[in-house]
Amino acid sequence: MQQSKTRVLTGITTSGTPHLGNYVGAIKPAIEASQDPSVQSFYFMADYHALIKCQDPKQVQQSRLEIAATWLALGLDTDNAIFYRQSDIREIPELTWMLSCVCAKGLMNRAHAYKAAVAENEEAGNQDPDKGITMGLFGYPVLMAADILMFNANKVPVGRDQIQHIEMARDIAGRFNHLYKGQYFTLPEAVVDEKVEVLRGLDGRKMSKSYHNTIPLFVSEKKLQKLVRKIKTNSLEPGEPKDPDTCTLFQIYSAFASLDETEAMRVQYADGIGWGEAKKQVFEYLNAHLAEPRERYNALMEDPGHIEAVLQKGAERAREEATETMEKLRNAVGLGRFI
Amino acid sequence: MQQSKTRVLTGITTSGTPHLGNYVGAIKPAIEASQDPSVQSFYFMADYHALIKCQDPKQVQQSRLEIAATWLALGLDTDNAIFYRQSDIREIPELTWMLSCVCAKGLMNRAHAYKAAVAENEEAGNQDPDKGITMGLFGYPVLMAADILMFNANKVPVGRDQIQHIEMARDIAGRFNHLYKGQYFTLPEAVVDEKVEVLRGLDGRKMSKSYHNTIPLFVSEKKLQKLVRKIKTNSLEPGEPKDPDTCTLFQIYSAFASLDETEAMRVQYADGIGWGEAKKQVFEYLNAHLAEPRERYNALMEDPGHIEAVLQKGAERAREEATETMEKLRNAVGLGRFI
Repeated sequence: MQQSKTRVLTGITTSGTPHLGNYVGAIKPAIEASQDPSVQSFYFMADYHALIKCQDPKQVQQSRLEIAATWLALGLDTDNAIFYRQSDIREIPELTWMLSCVCAKGLMNRAHAYKAAVAENEEAGNQDPDKGITMGLFGYPVLMAADILMFNANKVPVGRDQIQHIEMARDIAGRFNHLYKGQYFTLPEAVVDEKVEVLRGLDGRKMSKSYHNTIPLFVSEKKLQKLVRKIKTNSLEPGEPKDPDTCTLFQIYSAFASLDETEAMRVQYADGIGWGEAKKQVFEYLNAHLAEPRERYNALMEDPGHIEAVLQKGAERAREEATETMEKLRNAVGLGRFI
Repeated sequence: MQQSKTRVLTGITTSGTPHLGNYVGAIKPAIEASQDPSVQSFYFMADYHALIKCQDPKQVQQSRLEIAATWLALGLDTDNAIFYRQSDIREIPELTWMLSCVCAKGLMNRAHAYKAAVAENEEAGNQDPDKGITMGLFGYPVLMAADILMFNANKVPVGRDQIQHIEMARDIAGRFNHLYKGQYFTLPEAVVDEKVEVLRGLDGRKMSKSYHNTIPLFVSEKKLQKLVRKIKTNSLEPGEPKDPDTCTLFQIYSAFASLDETEAMRVQYADGIGWGEAKKQVFEYLNAHLAEPRERYNALMEDPGHIEAVLQKGAERAREEATETMEKLRNAVGLGRFI
């Protein structure tokens, strides 16, 4: 592990089944970025975070397995990148506690997610503005700071809604460095990719688990065909020219296709391709594109022992550093050994 | 470790130097209780908690060492009782996170210590009621719940001001058991010893570090003599009868002396013993009583390696159970291994 490399840390939410939108918006760019030799990438499944929203153990477990299998099937280079489950790094909750002791409560009061939950309660006329809000939801930016600061990440790719959390991590890191008089933590930077494409779902809205409009990445060929057929189009007949730029089907196609292929499809739209034919072509294209990783995915899902071994290897690499860091930090705060 | 024994868990604050008041009010009864063969005692130094109030690493470290040496010098039976540092049980912060995810923020809003800090801010006219309040201070009842629930303690001896924290631990335990459909945690009971004596300090107020009126347990003979001489008495002359029941000197003496010895001193008070003579006798009594453990204490303080070894042994016993418990809990919430 070379300290001179830029360190990029990416957390992967472990709830739900990965869909095409996740792939285009997050997984594909992350896997590409992991191949950059000038970068030391950290990818982790944020499964401690998953407990905030999901109290169904089977669902948490299944999602973790599916997501690990997905990233591996899509070619994450786990020799180069460090790929691990957050919950295998037991040092992270310990660091969370240390950071809690230097983190102002007021900082958490101003967190967007918390404020949104309070606003929702107030709108609903609840007497208790904190109704249904757990300490996990309230305090998770501290856990997120520990995720980042543990590995002295320089850059953290995030969506716009997460920028505040990175600022909080910087704030907490700065406070710790100041109080304990040392450069214990690197101040992380948020990296927001403005070009990241938001894929639309079956109904034309943003593809999202909460809208129930997703196309999962690795469904069977048959199911994929059925879902592509369900993508909402308009009532234009075959032969009538169609507008690709407002068309969900076209957007999904172009997210996978090359520029040339996209241009060719654009011509077909202008020529009045029928929706049935367009959907057939898109399905066939997606299916051809996904067949190979799907096969790998299915094989992985049937071999959880292999996934476990890969994650254990990643955890070992991550912990090698985390244990060293925590020993330094324990000494810094006065919790070191007596000899 | 026999599960059939009643489990009693005692947290020891690691701030400051142990004084006579700590000994009489907490250490002595705890060490006596640890000798009860029907009980499995857990004693731990609450050093994660210490970080909330003290950001001076040297002070935290010194206090931990002094407190460990004190309890060992006074005869804590570490073969029977499990004696450990909280910070050696890395599973505790992990459990804290799990509990955070089922603990209502509203519960913490109502914690006495937090409310007192807010009230103080409001009285001082601070615009931000949370001024100076960290997430550690706000959330520490969850950490305390983890301390207790990790070892399924049945009983937790506490002062009156701590009863609420035990109720919170019960509440959190009940919520976890309910959400994850199992009897994962024993609901702990607070044990308040109404008879515990509050020793008075040099100035007659409660002996407390914050009043700067303490007599440390293991000062030198000379220093002890000096401090006893400083205990506030009244201006009655030798020969005048004195009231033992309002006298700090008498209270301190009787906290250490036998009933017979106390009665004999009471007679001397009635007979008009002079303050100089009374102080001389009290000093001599205390000194004789403390000489042996003081010698052990001084030897221990010069051998931190021995203390470390004793604590590592305790941590090993505690962790044997904690690792098993956490594995069960990880499976319960969906964070188990894939095979």
